[in-house]
Amino acid sequence: MNLSNNLTAIDDTICALATPPGLSAIGIIRVSGKNSFSVCEKVFNPRNKQIRLSTADSHTIHLGEFVIGMEILDEVMVSVFKQPHSYTGEDSVEISCHGSAYIEQKILEALIDNGLRMARPGEFTMRAFLNGKFDLSQAEAVADLIASHSKTSHDLALNQMRGLFSNRIKELRKQLLDFTTLIELELDFSGEDVEFANREDFKRLLTTMYSEISALANSFSIGNVLKKGIPVAIVGQPNVGKSTLLNAILNEERAIVSEIPGTTRDTIEDTIVINGISFRFIDTAGLRDSGDIIESMGIERTYEKIDQAKIILFVFDVSLTGYTEIGPAMDEMKEHFSHLPEELLKGKKIILIANKTDLLVEAPRGFKSLVEMECLFVSAKRKENINLIVDSLSKYVETEKVTDNAMVSSARHYEALVKTKESLENIMTGFNQSISSDLIAIDIRQALHHLGEITGEITTNEVLENIFSKFCIGK
Amino acid sequence: MNLSNNLTAIDDTICALATPPGLSAIGIIRVSGKNSFSVCEKVFNPRNKQIRLSTADSHTIHLGEFVIGMEILDEVMVSVFKQPHSYTGEDSVEISCHGSAYIEQKILEALIDNGLRMARPGEFTMRAFLNGKFDLSQAEAVADLIASHSKTSHDLALNQMRGLFSNRIKELRKQLLDFTTLIELELDFSGEDVEFANREDFKRLLTTMYSEISALANSFSIGNVLKKGIPVAIVGQPNVGKSTLLNAILNEERAIVSEIPGTTRDTIEDTIVINGISFRFIDTAGLRDSGDIIESMGIERTYEKIDQAKIILFVFDVSLTGYTEIGPAMDEMKEHFSHLPEELLKGKKIILIANKTDLLVEAPRGFKSLVEMECLFVSAKRKENINLIVDSLSKYVETEKVTDNAMVSSARHYEALVKTKESLENIMTGFNQSISSDLIAIDIRQALHHLGEITGEITTNEVLENIFSKFCIGK
Repeated sequence: MNLSNNLTAIDDTICALATPPGLSAIGIIRVSGKNSFSVCEKVFNPRNKQIRLSTADSHTIHLGEFVIGMEILDEVMVSVFKQPHSYTGEDSVEISCHGSAYIEQKILEALIDNGLRMARPGEFTMRAFLNGKFDLSQAEAVADLIASHSKTSHDLALNQMRGLFSNRIKELRKQLLDFTTLIELELDFSGEDVEFANREDFKRLLTTMYSEISALANSFSIGNVLKKGIPVAIVGQPNVGKSTLLNAILNEERAIVSEIPGTTRDTIEDTIVINGISFRFIDTAGLRDSGDIIESMGIERTYEKIDQAKIILFVFDVSLTGYTEIGPAMDEMKEHFSHLPEELLKGKKIILIANKTDLLVEAPRGFKSLVEMECLFVSAKRKENINLIVDSLSKYVETEKVTDNAMVSSARHYEALVKTKESLENIMTGFNQSISSDLIAIDIRQALHHLGEITGEITTNEVLENIFSKFCIGK
Repeated sequence: MNLSNNLTAIDDTICALATPPGLSAIGIIRVSGKNSFSVCEKVFNPRNKQIRLSTADSHTIHLGEFVIGMEILDEVMVSVFKQPHSYTGEDSVEISCHGSAYIEQKILEALIDNGLRMARPGEFTMRAFLNGKFDLSQAEAVADLIASHSKTSHDLALNQMRGLFSNRIKELRKQLLDFTTLIELELDFSGEDVEFANREDFKRLLTTMYSEISALANSFSIGNVLKKGIPVAIVGQPNVGKSTLLNAILNEERAIVSEIPGTTRDTIEDTIVINGISFRFIDTAGLRDSGDIIESMGIERTYEKIDQAKIILFVFDVSLTGYTEIGPAMDEMKEHFSHLPEELLKGKKIILIANKTDLLVEAPRGFKSLVEMECLFVSAKRKENINLIVDSLSKYVETEKVTDNAMVSSARHYEALVKTKESLENIMTGFNQSISSDLIAIDIRQALHHLGEITGEITTNEVLENIFSKFCIGK
């Protein structure tokens, strides 16, 4: 489906810097649209005088001079892409110049003086979508791919860009559409009581679809977390060494550490990548009940952060009051742990961190058997056993890693899937209650609409603008 | 001349990121060397299965997947350049990927795992030089071109890169070399008292060369200043509004401005580009005699800065003590001006800035005729008449602007030219004193050596490493 008629913008030819600004070996200015060749011919003198961009083969590169009037600005390489075999599907040119801000600026100015327009963020990719090179879900993945900084978020985006997810959605939509056509045909012959669509086949399709759509919607909770990083909350009494532990894990002095209990009032976030998965660490204020209002607000926020976390590192001071036996420290820890609202901890992985082993006179004994949860003995101060925490975090996702299965990581897609599920429920209820076909047809059309929103078969300018405005310029 | 035998490094194949790091539409990884195609074939699956990089045409672009083992990393475009028709003169590949740090890093890792080596700064351009694509002076200009941020510094670098300067040097060197050959031939026949080289022709050549080399050496003072920006010192008594004036010119609140005399103790530099020429502004401490030691050090530094400047804006407070006639203000200004050491001002353009016109009760009269120097009446505070200063600065270089004439902007070239001049003087003196041909031949060889240093016909690894280490990675 080509929406180009909806947007007049696609008629003009656009240009933008496609590489980051800053001094470098190469800078790329990207041009796309029907006047790409004619405008670039005005400012480009090929070394080989026989060459004209408009008649050159697609996917060829030409050395020459970028000229402004009579003046040579730079020696450049110009790459020619003929429609439809370009990224955007339009005639396109890439000008590869020396990576100087001055030169890049002058090239853009010269192109604009010759009638081109600066591209809006994501406009090249939007054109690729409008020209049918990508569906909408694939186009969205391009921005995710560029922004990804861990293997899992990268793999998620790449799979989505390559159409794994949207092909499945399109397939389901097509099957549903086939049935709809038959049912709507029945409506045309409503006086004659014919049945073109086999009701049993349709119910089977609905059941399959429902379970598949549900699975995809459910994958959002892990997909979203993999994209953004798995949230890990570091929780515990004041002064048990939470910030020191975070620093040891991040291997840098990020949080403010002091000896005064309750120092960490704000939550500080940082991310590390372990085995290709990013973990988003959340340092929290201490958990004690406090009369101090700011401190109380900190605890309020700690609860919020715990609520968002998938993993909780519950830190306690194993050396407290100089125990040589572990029993009393554990009793105290259990006491503090029990203050945490139970519903906060539900479904989360909890790792107990027995910190400050550096202060123990002798090695702790008989502790691990006493608690049901995993317990790691570490000295955050001396950075001892921090690797145990890293290993444990890394194991958390081994069982749930990103496979080649389609996984949803976009809130927009999740929302559309949930709405599709609702429509499918309505259709199934309608069947069971023998509601008339014309009413059921409305729900089917709703389901088709929501599935179509994901791939962009159904879309509006507003949705498109919202999606592509989050892209960088030049993409 | 090909120096590749001097450097074993040219045997291996190198890779580097050629675009600035940072999120963007496109990132480029550059590969050069004899294994470029064989290594890239291991990590690149072209969409068109018929394509092999090693047999593809030069200057063609191929869409496909960058793969690491069985895993797809990204969809990329690969550009193929066959030797000698590449930037380096070697087989080269440019991999255009999505501009994500994660992807760029993984591509470089995969290339290195397959036997490539990370390029050193400037190594691509050094190879271009070693393979005879550029002479040394042209190669040096590539770094200047990338770093240039004004029209004049850009034009200087571009002219140098295009060989305007080095072609002239090569031509002079060739003429000198022709005579040397004849003179050295005479030495072989020294017993026979023959003269192959016409002495009068040789003297004429020497005279022409000497004046041309002198002119080039002299162009360094303006060439260097155009490359780095023309230094403009803002000088005056404390509290006459020097910092406010600088701010008004820079059109931003950069320097610290206060009502306390002597506030500006450090010199603050900033650059603006007027009509394509960059001016480097130097704000200075006040000029009063001061018992304050820090203040005295500031004045010491002010003298140093004035010494480096080409243009001096001498600022005074035209409203001082509420004069309605200009005479007394001028007397006071002249008094202060006379404190400046005369030798400091020699050869500099001086513009008097009568500041604080906003405080004048009536328009100043009869002032301009009283001073010989250009005097501009401005209110830095109200940003009034600042354009007069900008116009005046811009006029300064109109008479000395960069033309298509070769101009020297590199200290290394300047040094070589000065040494060439010395050798030419020795030769001419030798002739006049009828010194024997074998002694003169030594001086001629010196002159040839210094000229050859500029273009790289004579060079050492040390010089090369020093030059290219100032380049950015990937160039």
